[in-house]
Amino acid sequence: MNIALLGFGVVCGGVYDILKNMPEYNIKKILIRNPAKLTMDCMTLDFSDIENDSEIDLVVEAIGGLHPAREYILAALNAKKHVVTANKAVVAAYFEEFVTAATNNGVKFMMEATSGGGIPWIKNLQRVGRIDKVTRLHGIMNGTSNFILSAMTDEGKDFVDVLKTAQELGYAEADPSADIDGDDVRNKCAISASVAFGCPADVNSILKAGIRHISKADIDWFREQGLVCKLFATAVRDGENFDAVVEPVLLGCNTVEANVPKNYNITCLYGDTIGEVKLYGQGAGGLPTGNAIVQDIIDVNTGSAFDISFDSKLNKAEIISGRYYIRIPADVTGYAVYTDGICEKTFTLGNDTVIITKETTPAEIHKLLDANSSKTIFAARFI
Amino acid sequence: MNIALLGFGVVCGGVYDILKNMPEYNIKKILIRNPAKLTMDCMTLDFSDIENDSEIDLVVEAIGGLHPAREYILAALNAKKHVVTANKAVVAAYFEEFVTAATNNGVKFMMEATSGGGIPWIKNLQRVGRIDKVTRLHGIMNGTSNFILSAMTDEGKDFVDVLKTAQELGYAEADPSADIDGDDVRNKCAISASVAFGCPADVNSILKAGIRHISKADIDWFREQGLVCKLFATAVRDGENFDAVVEPVLLGCNTVEANVPKNYNITCLYGDTIGEVKLYGQGAGGLPTGNAIVQDIIDVNTGSAFDISFDSKLNKAEIISGRYYIRIPADVTGYAVYTDGICEKTFTLGNDTVIITKETTPAEIHKLLDANSSKTIFAARFI
Repeated sequence: MNIALLGFGVVCGGVYDILKNMPEYNIKKILIRNPAKLTMDCMTLDFSDIENDSEIDLVVEAIGGLHPAREYILAALNAKKHVVTANKAVVAAYFEEFVTAATNNGVKFMMEATSGGGIPWIKNLQRVGRIDKVTRLHGIMNGTSNFILSAMTDEGKDFVDVLKTAQELGYAEADPSADIDGDDVRNKCAISASVAFGCPADVNSILKAGIRHISKADIDWFREQGLVCKLFATAVRDGENFDAVVEPVLLGCNTVEANVPKNYNITCLYGDTIGEVKLYGQGAGGLPTGNAIVQDIIDVNTGSAFDISFDSKLNKAEIISGRYYIRIPADVTGYAVYTDGICEKTFTLGNDTVIITKETTPAEIHKLLDANSSKTIFAARFI
Repeated sequence: MNIALLGFGVVCGGVYDILKNMPEYNIKKILIRNPAKLTMDCMTLDFSDIENDSEIDLVVEAIGGLHPAREYILAALNAKKHVVTANKAVVAAYFEEFVTAATNNGVKFMMEATSGGGIPWIKNLQRVGRIDKVTRLHGIMNGTSNFILSAMTDEGKDFVDVLKTAQELGYAEADPSADIDGDDVRNKCAISASVAFGCPADVNSILKAGIRHISKADIDWFREQGLVCKLFATAVRDGENFDAVVEPVLLGCNTVEANVPKNYNITCLYGDTIGEVKLYGQGAGGLPTGNAIVQDIIDVNTGSAFDISFDSKLNKAEIISGRYYIRIPADVTGYAVYTDGICEKTFTLGNDTVIITKETTPAEIHKLLDANSSKTIFAARFI
C-alpha cells in the first residue's frame, strides 16, 4: 500500500517510525511546508504531487488546523484515496462533509487518532455499536489539563506553577488556551458523540468551560470533601435527543476516573448489554498517536475498517444536569440574577463566595460564566 | 448465519437475548442436558444433531468444564464449523489443539468471552499485536475476588462475612474455590499470555496464590501504608523468555487498578509504541459475556476475525520479581528455611509474624506456601 503523509511533525514522525518496520506499507510522498526541510527524496512542497499520484492509495493528514486541511482531505477523498487523519479540529468542524465525500468515492475516512491518542477509542465505540446503542459516554480527553489537575491535587500546587512545569516538560503549549479552556476536549467530544450516536454533532452547540480559573483553595476544599476535579467531556442520548457538554466535574476520590494520573486519558461508554466499558492510555504523543493512525491504515488495508454512517437524526436537548460548585470572586457583582433560583447553600472561601447549587443544567451555569467572561469564576459539576 | 448453542445457562441465555434482535443470525439448534427442559423446537439432547447439521456454520460452546467440552469443540471444528467459546478452563488446557484444528479445517476458533467478560480484551490484545510486541500484561480478572477485596477494604469487614454477602448476591458460588484460590484467574492468565506472546502457555506452569487467607488485620495494615490489595494475573515477556503468575499484589491506593470497584475487571497491556493501555468493564454476567460471544460471531461473519498464531517458541523463565508481605500464623513452624535469605524486616501483627522480604521471585514464596498448604499464611507482592 502506497501512503502519503501530509505534515512531518510529531505525529507523522511517529507514523514514519512505526511504518518503517512494516514493509507492506510504503511511504511514497511526504508533504512539508518549509523548503529548508526537503531532506528526503519523497518530500514535496506541492500537494498536487500527491493528489495526482494515482499510485497513492491512502493519505495521512496531520497538519492541523481547518485550512488547508479541509481542502486537502476533500481533494484526497475525491481523488479516491482513503484518508486517515489526526486533526480533531477539522473533523469536528466538517465530519459530515468528509463522510459524505468518502462514501461517494468508495473510500474510507478514518479518524481514530483524533480522540484519545493511542487509546483504541473510536474503533471500540464503533464495535460496541454493532450490538448496543451507546447511550452515554464521558472521558478525560486532554492530557495537559489532566496533568495540571493531577499535580494540583497530588502536590498542592497553584495553577500557574503547575502550568509552567507542564510547559517546561512539553505537556503544554506556549499558548495553552486550547487545552485548558476545553476547546480541544470539545472537538473530541463532538467527534465521539457523532460516532457513538450516528449523527453529526454540531461542535459549536456544545457548551464548554475549562480549568483556567481553578485555584488551590478550590482543590483544598474538594480534598476535604473527598472529591477530585477532572475536566470531562460528557455526551448522552435519550431516544431521539442528545446532549453534550465539556466542563470540570467533581468525582469521589476512590473512582477510577479520579485516579487517572499525569497526562493520561480515559474514555468511558455505556451500552445496554455490555454495560460500562472504560479505556485508558496515552492521549497524545508521536508514537501513541502514530500507532492509532497505523491501526487505521491496517484496518483500511485489510478490509476491516468500519464505515461511519450518520443515519440518525437527533435533536440537541437539555438532558445533562447536576449540582454545581461555583466560586465567585469578590469583584463579580449582579450574579444573583443567575443563581437565586438554583442556590442550595452558600459559604465563603477566602475572599470569594461559593455557591452549591441544586440540580440544574449546564446552560444555566454557562449563562453566569458567559456574562462574566472577564472574571475568574470557577464552576464544576458534582457527579 | 446459522448458529448452534451448546448449553443454555446464563451465558448462552445472554447470547440468545442479544441475537434475537439481529435477524441475520439464526439460532438453529440448542444442546441441553436435561430432558425436562426441552421447551423449544430447536432444542436437542444429542450433540450429533448439531455436528451433522451441514447448515450450521458456527457453534457457541458455554457448557464449561473440560469434558465433553473439548470433544464437542474438536468435533465442531473438524466438521468445519467455526467455534466461539466462553469456557476458560478448556481453552487454557487445550488452546494449541483447538487452534491447530481450526487452522487445519479453515475455520475460526474464537475465545473473547473466556477472559474479561464484556471487556474487549482479546480483540484489543490481538489488535495491538499487529503493530507492537506486547511485553507485559496484568489484570484484575475475577469479579468475585475483587468484590471481596473491595468490600474488605471499603467497609473494614472480615473475609468470611464478605464472602457470605457475595454468595447471597450471586457474585460467588456455593463452592467459591475457583474464584478465591486463583484457578479462574490462572486460566485467563494463560489464555491472555498465549494470545499476547504468540505461544501457548502451559497453565499448570503458572504459579498461583489466592485470597482465601487474607484477614482484616492484613487489610488494616495495608491501609495504614496507603496500599490496596488486589488479585492480579501478571505475564511478561523478555526476548525468548516469558513468565506468568497469579497472586495478590499491593498497589498504591491512588492507582487506577486499586480503585476498580465491586465485581468489575480491568486488563492492562504494555506495547512499545502504544504505551500502557487499560480496559475496564464487567468481567462476568450473561449479557456482558453474551456480548463478547456475539462480537466474536460478528467478526467471524464479517471476515474481520483475527487468526491465532502460535509461531513463537518461548521458554518459561523467572522474570517476575518483587518484595513480598508474608503473614505467618503462630502455628507455622520451620518457615525460616524459606525466609532467612530473603527477609528484609519482620514485625508482629496480633499473634502472627509478618515478614517483608527483599526482592525475590514468586517461586521462592510459593515454596513456603506449598510447604504449609494446610496453614493460613497470606502473601502478597508489592508493586
